[in-house]
Order: sequence, then structure tokens, then C-alpha cells
Amino acid sequence: MLAAWVDGAPAGAISLDDRGLHYGDGLFETIGASHGQARFLGAHLARLMHGCVALSIPAPDAARLRSEVTRAAATAQHVIVKLIVTRGAAVERGYAFSGSEVPRRIVCAYPWPEGPAGDRAPARAAMAELRCARPVLAGIKHLNRLEQVLARQEARQRDLDEVILCSDAGFVTGGSMTNVFALIDGRLVTPHAAQCLVAGVVRGQLLGVAARFGIPTGEQSLTPQAMQSADALWLTNARVGLWPVASFGTRVFAAHEWTPRLQGALHAAAVEAS
Amino acid sequence: MLAAWVDGAPAGAISLDDRGLHYGDGLFETIGASHGQARFLGAHLARLMHGCVALSIPAPDAARLRSEVTRAAATAQHVIVKLIVTRGAAVERGYAFSGSEVPRRIVCAYPWPEGPAGDRAPARAAMAELRCARPVLAGIKHLNRLEQVLARQEARQRDLDEVILCSDAGFVTGGSMTNVFALIDGRLVTPHAAQCLVAGVVRGQLLGVAARFGIPTGEQSLTPQAMQSADALWLTNARVGLWPVASFGTRVFAAHEWTPRLQGALHAAAVEAS
Repeated sequence: MLAAWVDGAPAGAISLDDRGLHYGDGLFETIGASHGQARFLGAHLARLMHGCVALSIPAPDAARLRSEVTRAAATAQHVIVKLIVTRGAAVERGYAFSGSEVPRRIVCAYPWPEGPAGDRAPARAAMAELRCARPVLAGIKHLNRLEQVLARQEARQRDLDEVILCSDAGFVTGGSMTNVFALIDGRLVTPHAAQCLVAGVVRGQLLGVAARFGIPTGEQSLTPQAMQSADALWLTNARVGLWPVASFGTRVFAAHEWTPRLQGALHAAAVEAS
Repeated sequence: MLAAWVDGAPAGAISLDDRGLHYGDGLFETIGASHGQARFLGAHLARLMHGCVALSIPAPDAARLRSEVTRAAATAQHVIVKLIVTRGAAVERGYAFSGSEVPRRIVCAYPWPEGPAGDRAPARAAMAELRCARPVLAGIKHLNRLEQVLARQEARQRDLDEVILCSDAGFVTGGSMTNVFALIDGRLVTPHAAQCLVAGVVRGQLLGVAARFGIPTGEQSLTPQAMQSADALWLTNARVGLWPVASFGTRVFAAHEWTPRLQGALHAAAVEAS
């Protein structure tokens, strides 16, 4: 970690009574930053505010969050800023919150060695064995991430870059750390936000960028079979940006001409949105 | 909080890079303690060890845990000891763990004003609106507790003592903070451990105690309808022990003769097991 702050002050620790630790009672954003500019910061803060509403956490002041993320973004040339908002210190013991807790802001700056233009080998992916369905929390970037921890372990054990998760109903909910896009019949499709484990910021930006390129997009239920027979697959998150998929189970994908175009457009959009 | 320790040393804070905070990557036990005796400590530690295996967290030394919980138990006449084991400080950023993290032990002592013989009014309960199904994590007492936080909020908003959660398949998984028992055709039945949100320690003890009383017990799938038409309902956890249910939705229950007998037997079992 390069640096960290709690409620705006440099800090290395958090009080033991924080509900973020006890229950995962909070939210986070992972934000890429280059040359002091936090990428898609407005969209990240908007999602955080949406999550605060969903969890009845009083929303922190957005201008203050923006300034604290921007300070963290300046700690190196390329930085991953992690912004955590917990419900704060427990007022009472137990799961119930009183409503008088004071939310806590934690900002951590990490090195982002590869930066936004990171040139990584296309991803080897497959469906996960692990199932994860948390309909109440769909789309929210909360602190309860054990399924993702276990899914990353599965990916490592199977020597994959990413595993794709599926709901009980058999629909794709996303990768363990990414959102999923498929090129099907000339359309760039991705699961509905309400079906996603996390409604990714880069996911939302890519839908916008593609539309500007004149590429038809769609949010729809996506099955593993549809991914298997797609013309191309991509994964997105704040760190990897747009990551083409080299293989999905037994299916192998060739490089697709849209990959560099969409990567370039995403990069341009991030600079605009900073 | 009366007192707290991290890895055996008095502490009030935990390092900001702890994976318990970032992902809820850890486990906990809530242990009632009276007159310095932690109740059902062996069963609590056994469940914790089971959770460590499930999450691939290296198990802390049991004798050390026992001694740290016992120290916390001595801070007042009646204490709730919360034992948290996280995977420890992150070795790398991101969901994936490296396997070289060093688990962290957090022990917090809270007042337990009512103590084990707490005489509380029977519970007003109802089915929750909220749905929660996390089959991968069933039974494990992990730190990802947002559904419980939201369910407690629902209970408060509906002026109930407890709300009962149900799987997508329509089977009862437990209360927001309790396990559920029903008296049906002379048998004391409770959902299978594998169907429970948490396989409660007091739940396990009550099954044993009831068997010693010659009461037929059973672990079986339980529907809300079966609860509605049961002859009696009880809730269990480490704090409330055995809590009779006064009402479940529109159904009202009279006091049942087994309640004081089972409460007494549970109390005796706790003293034996200390």
C-alpha cells in the first residue's frame, strides 16, 4: 500500500468496533488513476451513493470523497485507489444498526504497475464450479466478498485467469472480478445490471462507448451456452479495463478487431470523465 | 466493549490491510460466558475450525484460542465474547489470497446484561420479505453478514423480534440471528445444518439435550407453512439461549411446558461443557 487515510487523516488502522470488519457492513470502489486523474470518478461515486441508499448508510459528502480520492490518486504515476465506506463504529452489539452510526471513509492507494494501457495476454476463462446468488445484493459493490475470494481460489487452482459465475436459474452473473461481454449476432451483450454480482463502472462506460462507435449493444440474460457460441468475449473491470478472452472452457477465440478500438475508446472516455 | 485483543495483545484497532475488513474474509463466534466460564466453548471452537477448512484459512492453535477466550470471559460476571479469525493482512491486492497470509485473532468482550438465564418476553416473529441463499457458505459463521444486517432492519421496521428467512426453494434457513425449532407431531424439528444460514452451536446442543429428555428430534426441511401449523416454536442463539415464540405472523402460540425444561437442560449442558 502506498498510503491510506481514515476520515481524511493519514492512518494505518481502523477501530476494532467497525461494522465493516464485523459484518462486511459497507461498500467499496476500486478506481484506476493515472497521472493524478481518477478514471470514471463520477460513475464510481454515483454507484457508491446508490449502494448507500440500498444499505441505508447515510451518504458521505461527495465533494469530500472526490477530494480524498484525488489526493490518493496523486501518490504515484499509476495508482489503484480503493475507497471503502463502512457504516462506522457499532453503536450496539449485534447485526442490527441503530441508524445513528457515523459512516467511516477509508481511502487506500496501491501501486498500479501496469497502468490503464496494461498490455496483458488475453484471458483464459471458464465457468466456475462455485455458485453464487445473492439477489438482494445484486449489483451493489458491498464488502461481503467471500464468494469472490473462493472463486479466485478456484481460478488459481484450475490455472485460469478468470472463472464465470452463474445464478441458480442458469444465467451468467459475471466473472469473479469482472463483468462479462459477448459479441452475439453483431451485438455487444452483457447481463442486465440487476443480474450482475456487481454492476461495474467500466461495464457501464463500455456500453456507452460502444454505442458511440455505432455498435449495437444490449443488456440481456446470458447463458454459458451463449457465451460458448459467441463471436468474441471480453471482461471488464477498473484495473484491467477491457480484457479480451482467449478461451472459454474448450472454446478458443481469435483476436478480434474491436478489441483495440474499444480499448482506445474506453481510455479516451476515462480521460474525459476524470 | 469491555476489552479487546488482537493476536493476544490488548488492542483497539486493526490494520487497514486486513482481509476481514476488505472482503469479510474470515469467521467469527459469539460466545456467552458467565462467572468466567465460556459456554459450549468446545463446540464453538470446533465450528470455527470447520469454517477455517471451508475457507482455506490456516487454523489457529486451539489451545491459544481457548486461553484467549477464557481471559475475555473473565472481564465481567456475564460477558459476550466475540472471537473473530480473519485471513489476516493482504499479501496482494485483490480478492485472491496467496496462501501465505497469517490469520489474525481478534477477541472482543462485551457486557451481557441479561446473562444466560435472561428472562425475555417470548418472541414476535414472522417470515422475512428478504430472501437469502448462499449455498456455498451454508452453515459457516463467516464475516459476510449483510443479509442479516438488512433482515434485522426489516424486523425493526415491522416491530418484530425476529424475521425468519427462506431459501429460493421455499425452505426455512433460519432467523436473522437465530436458529429455528418447531414442535411437529411430538417431534422437535429444525432445518438440516446444510440448509441453515448458520449451523448454531446452541442449535446443536439443544438437539442433544432434547434427546436426553427422550424428546424425538429431527433435522428436516421446514416450510413456513409447517411452522405456521406447529404446536410450538423456539429460537436459539448463544445470547438468548432458547427463546419461545409468542407469534409467527398471524399465528399465536401459548406458553409451552417444554420451554422451562429445555432452558434448564441447556443451562446445565453449558455448565458441563465449559
